[in-house]
Amino acid sequence: MALPAQVTLVEVGPRDGLQNESQTIPLQAKLQLVDDLAAAGLPVIEAGSFVNPKWVPQMADSEAVFAGLQRRPGVRYSALTPNLQGFERAQAAGADEVAVFASASEAFSQKNINCSIAESLLRFEPVMAAARKAQLPVRGYVSCVLGCPYEGDIDPAAVARVSHSLLDMGCYEVSLGDTIGTGTAGSMDRLLTTLLQDIGADRLAVHCHDTYGQALANILVALQHGIATVDASVAGLGGCPYARGASGNVATEDVLYLLNGLGITTGVDLQTVVAAGNRICAALDRDSGSRVARALGAG
Amino acid sequence: MALPAQVTLVEVGPRDGLQNESQTIPLQAKLQLVDDLAAAGLPVIEAGSFVNPKWVPQMADSEAVFAGLQRRPGVRYSALTPNLQGFERAQAAGADEVAVFASASEAFSQKNINCSIAESLLRFEPVMAAARKAQLPVRGYVSCVLGCPYEGDIDPAAVARVSHSLLDMGCYEVSLGDTIGTGTAGSMDRLLTTLLQDIGADRLAVHCHDTYGQALANILVALQHGIATVDASVAGLGGCPYARGASGNVATEDVLYLLNGLGITTGVDLQTVVAAGNRICAALDRDSGSRVARALGAG
Repeated sequence: MALPAQVTLVEVGPRDGLQNESQTIPLQAKLQLVDDLAAAGLPVIEAGSFVNPKWVPQMADSEAVFAGLQRRPGVRYSALTPNLQGFERAQAAGADEVAVFASASEAFSQKNINCSIAESLLRFEPVMAAARKAQLPVRGYVSCVLGCPYEGDIDPAAVARVSHSLLDMGCYEVSLGDTIGTGTAGSMDRLLTTLLQDIGADRLAVHCHDTYGQALANILVALQHGIATVDASVAGLGGCPYARGASGNVATEDVLYLLNGLGITTGVDLQTVVAAGNRICAALDRDSGSRVARALGAG
Repeated sequence: MALPAQVTLVEVGPRDGLQNESQTIPLQAKLQLVDDLAAAGLPVIEAGSFVNPKWVPQMADSEAVFAGLQRRPGVRYSALTPNLQGFERAQAAGADEVAVFASASEAFSQKNINCSIAESLLRFEPVMAAARKAQLPVRGYVSCVLGCPYEGDIDPAAVARVSHSLLDMGCYEVSLGDTIGTGTAGSMDRLLTTLLQDIGADRLAVHCHDTYGQALANILVALQHGIATVDASVAGLGGCPYARGASGNVATEDVLYLLNGLGITTGVDLQTVVAAGNRICAALDRDSGSRVARALGAG
């Protein structure tokens, strides 16, 4: 197997994870989580989201998270910014990078953010311009790349279109989200075969959900295609592993176990990530969504 | 990806699965399960085990299972037979094939069956001779192929030795068991690279446990090596998905979802398997270990 020698793990637990947890999370628990993850060696941590707190109450304290976090050298602390106002807040808070998002599915775009894909991209132009001026890197997320709850299968060409748009607008990287986790090794293979025709593997990341248990197999396929950036959420935060419709982020621990087994360097320590996941799960009084954490007996 | 066009799923839930469940299972529930699985199109179903009931009380009624099952054409109903007495019982009960087992780990062999690997193989010689005479196919299981709870890593050469012995003794196929689920895509790749040097892919099967969430990635690697027989247990029976030390059989539903996504033919209907798993889980009052079943909302 031809695989990358090194993979960058992008930890999305404190944002994509916690925003989908139903209970209120104390600021102190968030700060502890972010610092535990940084201590484990995770190089990129999505620490918050500067969205309207009316829509995402879990992220209302993102300013306080950025203000309170203990910066560790070599770690990039990023934030989701849906619009210029959010970008300005993220910049003021000291985010090292920001992220914007679009969908590969028209129906999902309409239902989720109430506008077409093209309109959503237009909305990000002021963010891109401001980020350029501020010299802040921007990451692009694409959702529903392997399936949509409303449209079903998604044409890889649609994913290619929105990915190209985000890269052309100035995103340094596009993270391909299997939002509902219905993707398989087969559909991931077809998607990447299409995208890699004219996008470099170094500009793509995968963001897999484990709702159907397929995430690690899908990530393996991505690695075999040369993708070297993988998103994951400690303890599988953001998806109750048992409930229907759970978002089901793949657990960082499980991805790391796979990467370690493949001899791929990440700079991340498994035991420390497991401990970080167990600590936040204890704080949330929930089971870990990581099979590795549960197998190691502390989940 | 070069993959087999067709895969044989070997359903081990009624034996390897149920024997590890802690509660007593009524005969009627077993018969229903076996028939539900046959109705789903599973071509091989391990329906029982003719071992000393003192050691495996869950399998004490295997004669009754074989006597009561409603045979469907095209389905092979198999049984585990640890010795000649067990073989004779299996033959009398009408098993279509039998299975013997050995370990790739000396320490596991000693702890599990109280003899060396070589001694365990010797014990099976009378079984092999009787099976030859009765023209019953014999499958060989090898445990601990990717790790042992006592020895840790296992040398692929040790797996090769015991696999060759079983094939030389007359087994038509060897099923490679990752008994504790610690294997990864990397160790599976190394193991198969070694074994396939002088064993045909058509004489090997994989039997993966999902304890660390790695089973589907490991199975994908096996498929990429041309392995076309995969063991699985409906609903992940045999391993509580949450508890430490659980055996953690990979769920048939999850494997089938992977295979369907790869366009690999199995002849098995996913919805029917999901329904079979949900029915036995309801009878056992346990959650399904299948992520697919849980995602589909009936688990």
